[in-house]
Amino acid sequence: MGKKDGGGKTNYTLKVPKGTKDWDGSDMVIREKIFSTITNVFKRHGAVTIDTPVFELKEILSGKYGEDSKLIYDLADQGGELCSLRYDLTVPFARWLAMNSSIQNIKRYHIAKVYRRDQPAMTKGRMREFYQCDFDIAGQYDAMIPDAEILRITCEIFNELGWDGKYTIKINHRKILDGIFKVCGVPDDKIRTISSAVDKLDKSPWTEVRREMTEDKGLDPAVADKIGEYVVRKGGRDLLESLQADATLTANDSAKQGLADMELLFNYLEIFSVFKHVSFDMSLARGLDYYTGVIYEVITEASAPQAAQQLSSSASATNSKPAKTPKASKQVNGDDDRSNDPSVGVGSIAAGGRYDELVGMFSGRAVPCVGISFGVERIFSITKARIEAEKSAKLRTTDTDVYIMAMGGTGLLKERMEITKRLWDVGVKAEFLWKVKPKFDKQFQAAERGGVPWSILLGDEELKNGQCKIKELGLPEGHPEKNGVLVELANLEKEVLGRVNKPSGNADGVESVIKALESSNMAAAPQS
Amino acid sequence: MGKKDGGGKTNYTLKVPKGTKDWDGSDMVIREKIFSTITNVFKRHGAVTIDTPVFELKEILSGKYGEDSKLIYDLADQGGELCSLRYDLTVPFARWLAMNSSIQNIKRYHIAKVYRRDQPAMTKGRMREFYQCDFDIAGQYDAMIPDAEILRITCEIFNELGWDGKYTIKINHRKILDGIFKVCGVPDDKIRTISSAVDKLDKSPWTEVRREMTEDKGLDPAVADKIGEYVVRKGGRDLLESLQADATLTANDSAKQGLADMELLFNYLEIFSVFKHVSFDMSLARGLDYYTGVIYEVITEASAPQAAQQLSSSASATNSKPAKTPKASKQVNGDDDRSNDPSVGVGSIAAGGRYDELVGMFSGRAVPCVGISFGVERIFSITKARIEAEKSAKLRTTDTDVYIMAMGGTGLLKERMEITKRLWDVGVKAEFLWKVKPKFDKQFQAAERGGVPWSILLGDEELKNGQCKIKELGLPEGHPEKNGVLVELANLEKEVLGRVNKPSGNADGVESVIKALESSNMAAAPQS
Repeated sequence: MGKKDGGGKTNYTLKVPKGTKDWDGSDMVIREKIFSTITNVFKRHGAVTIDTPVFELKEILSGKYGEDSKLIYDLADQGGELCSLRYDLTVPFARWLAMNSSIQNIKRYHIAKVYRRDQPAMTKGRMREFYQCDFDIAGQYDAMIPDAEILRITCEIFNELGWDGKYTIKINHRKILDGIFKVCGVPDDKIRTISSAVDKLDKSPWTEVRREMTEDKGLDPAVADKIGEYVVRKGGRDLLESLQADATLTANDSAKQGLADMELLFNYLEIFSVFKHVSFDMSLARGLDYYTGVIYEVITEASAPQAAQQLSSSASATNSKPAKTPKASKQVNGDDDRSNDPSVGVGSIAAGGRYDELVGMFSGRAVPCVGISFGVERIFSITKARIEAEKSAKLRTTDTDVYIMAMGGTGLLKERMEITKRLWDVGVKAEFLWKVKPKFDKQFQAAERGGVPWSILLGDEELKNGQCKIKELGLPEGHPEKNGVLVELANLEKEVLGRVNKPSGNADGVESVIKALESSNMAAAPQS
Repeated sequence: MGKKDGGGKTNYTLKVPKGTKDWDGSDMVIREKIFSTITNVFKRHGAVTIDTPVFELKEILSGKYGEDSKLIYDLADQGGELCSLRYDLTVPFARWLAMNSSIQNIKRYHIAKVYRRDQPAMTKGRMREFYQCDFDIAGQYDAMIPDAEILRITCEIFNELGWDGKYTIKINHRKILDGIFKVCGVPDDKIRTISSAVDKLDKSPWTEVRREMTEDKGLDPAVADKIGEYVVRKGGRDLLESLQADATLTANDSAKQGLADMELLFNYLEIFSVFKHVSFDMSLARGLDYYTGVIYEVITEASAPQAAQQLSSSASATNSKPAKTPKASKQVNGDDDRSNDPSVGVGSIAAGGRYDELVGMFSGRAVPCVGISFGVERIFSITKARIEAEKSAKLRTTDTDVYIMAMGGTGLLKERMEITKRLWDVGVKAEFLWKVKPKFDKQFQAAERGGVPWSILLGDEELKNGQCKIKELGLPEGHPEKNGVLVELANLEKEVLGRVNKPSGNADGVESVIKALESSNMAAAPQS
């Protein structure tokens, strides 16, 4: 309860809970635009959305997140079932698939908030409540075709956000990694923990990762050195061919199958014009246990890891040039650059992979899945920073087309209401000032603050003649229509619609921000 | 933790928590369409959206909900701040306004889930997690103008959902009610509790309400009878005029001001073409304490309370005909018809009013507010039932325009991928079957299941000639284009765009459901 002051009034702690925030103003506009860009791409690929409860039975989440389970938010035990806030969108999806056994296959997306009781670092964008944006394909299909479509979707999204040429998809395959660990001599029971160590190569130099393998995890140093020769390699088809020519490696069934998958995938990615964005990166291992096939992570220039340089200078066996990796960013603090989402690695803006066995953890039924999670909070931060840096046009927070104003002292409230009502009737987005006798200045300022492009000016004289003025706001001095154009009131709807030319009737009304994003190199969909 | 069976496999309780549900399939399509219809109207009126955290500090919610506070979900105390899941969207909005003192005025909407640890009744639509959809106007304006716009928005929404002529807005004013209670002789300290009793007139007969007032709440029976003569009245301007002619009532300042407000409001509602949907209903009192002015509740034919009849037959002083009340529904169980949302009364689909003092509870700053909350779960249920009853066209869950298929045995995977990629490049929503050599039947069935309107048929012969077929699916036998139309591959994008004629690039892609809703009398926006 809040404290009481002398007068008996309750003083509240006026804040949101630690690690959460309100979304409003232009932040909300940018976020909505990002969501609608992403959603459009998902729908272009035939996806549907499902929505699960924000909390799940506690036991559904148990045993899915390893050490991070301590970060799960529980609801208080107020009697009845024990529940926890969802930690991600993947486990609820798997639970949904297990419950709906009639679903043989689905492409689903889900954009929603998830909850982690982590130490928040607001300035670094690490929150306790944050958005995830997941796209997953479930179902039994021929090898690597859905996997290729996921990466195509990824490229469409980043291209349509205006990042073409500024991002790289790092890609690897769990079966290749596992094969490497086997042929290098890693004992079976150490494979997952050694894999986790490899995954740190994007933020730590090889020497540190090698130390962790040998000192912390008890791996034979000779084995670690063998692993080191593999995992520092990156490239494209050259790397694939070199691995395929490695008889030791291809003698391992797992590696052989992974390499065959990769060849198929590369072929499909070529067809989809996606291969140019890809870097086959053998240091990519991904933290989560449940991946079983191809894994990937998207990094952008703004988040390129400093570790890349350290890695390539401390290793020897890079027999392929790093293809199309974005320019390394200026020296950044590794921690500064950590995503708020532990499932997305350092500096990455999207990540995912194939997980064929997770649904089986909930039911006997095996449903192969492949998916990706977009780090929308991070995409938001980068987009916002770019817009601010480029000082692009002020973002409008509303879509209002027309502001209806009275000239002169009588206020003309009834007439303003009538005109506005006629425009609403035909779907025009219209506002007027809710005062009986508003000053002209106040009306003009309200329109200007909202960035409204058009105004209708009502005056006693004009109304007597059955006319009013339509005026485009913001015209330069000297423009022939600077003072507005007289039109017949009887034709008003037609006159206005002809000008704003955007009948509403659609959920995405943030045309203004599209323009702003376009002007700051955040191109809209190619077809529009 | 789940139980272990003999094999060591964990058996999970595969369910969602009590009182929650997954949204998927056509339910999701209907819900999204309702949300986008509502959102479009809000934006037409210059509204912005804000998004607050799903949980708030526990003390923020304390003391706002009276007895219902016991229904608040708390988060477990895992160290740090004590938090609770939000109970509605109004208190978080007031908290946001109090925190953002630079905001002088705003029209904001918020569509989000709220949480109440109520006894769920799934069949009756009473859930523990459910959506609210709120629209509020904050700021100092001239009397009744924003209030009138709220009701105009309400009518636009229900008209665009296709319910024109099937709903009634019951309207009353707290100041009139309070004036009545005073002139009838209710002691000051009983005004709120007597008001609560009056509010039950939509589900209980007057005799029962009178009994509650006198027996449970200790009101003088003579006072109760005087109240009874007022609160059973309903009508339009006739009722207003009769109250304005009541010298006893107008001697009370509160009543006088309320009546002046109502006259102003009625004038504005006439201008906005909204008055015809309104019934001035003196039995409407609304449960929540914080209302200070006009209050309203929208009821629809499908939820008309049986109590209306009981009321009018047990009362005497109805000197005005009930104007335009929807036909009473067949006898329904009152409880069956209870909204899942206690802030929305029995049988109502939206409700709200003016609350000028709530923000002041959080900060010294007074911010007058007026708002409405739409019962989206109830609107969803009624919409779904209507669609099902009218057996309208099966709702599509995806928006895919074109399915790309191979004829013949080679599968033509590469060609299908290339063609699909070209269509994605121009924004066409396109799919193909993720099999190397799919049977023609399987491809056709997949397209049919998704209700895809167009297909592209690839065959070896046609490809050799640089051609393919475009075929509209579902054409009747004998139609000249039943077997498709040969087109040049070089012109494919143009040929397809000319047919589907809907470049994507917009968040609202549920064109299919619009059509279905139109065909079931759920008209789309008038302008579209």
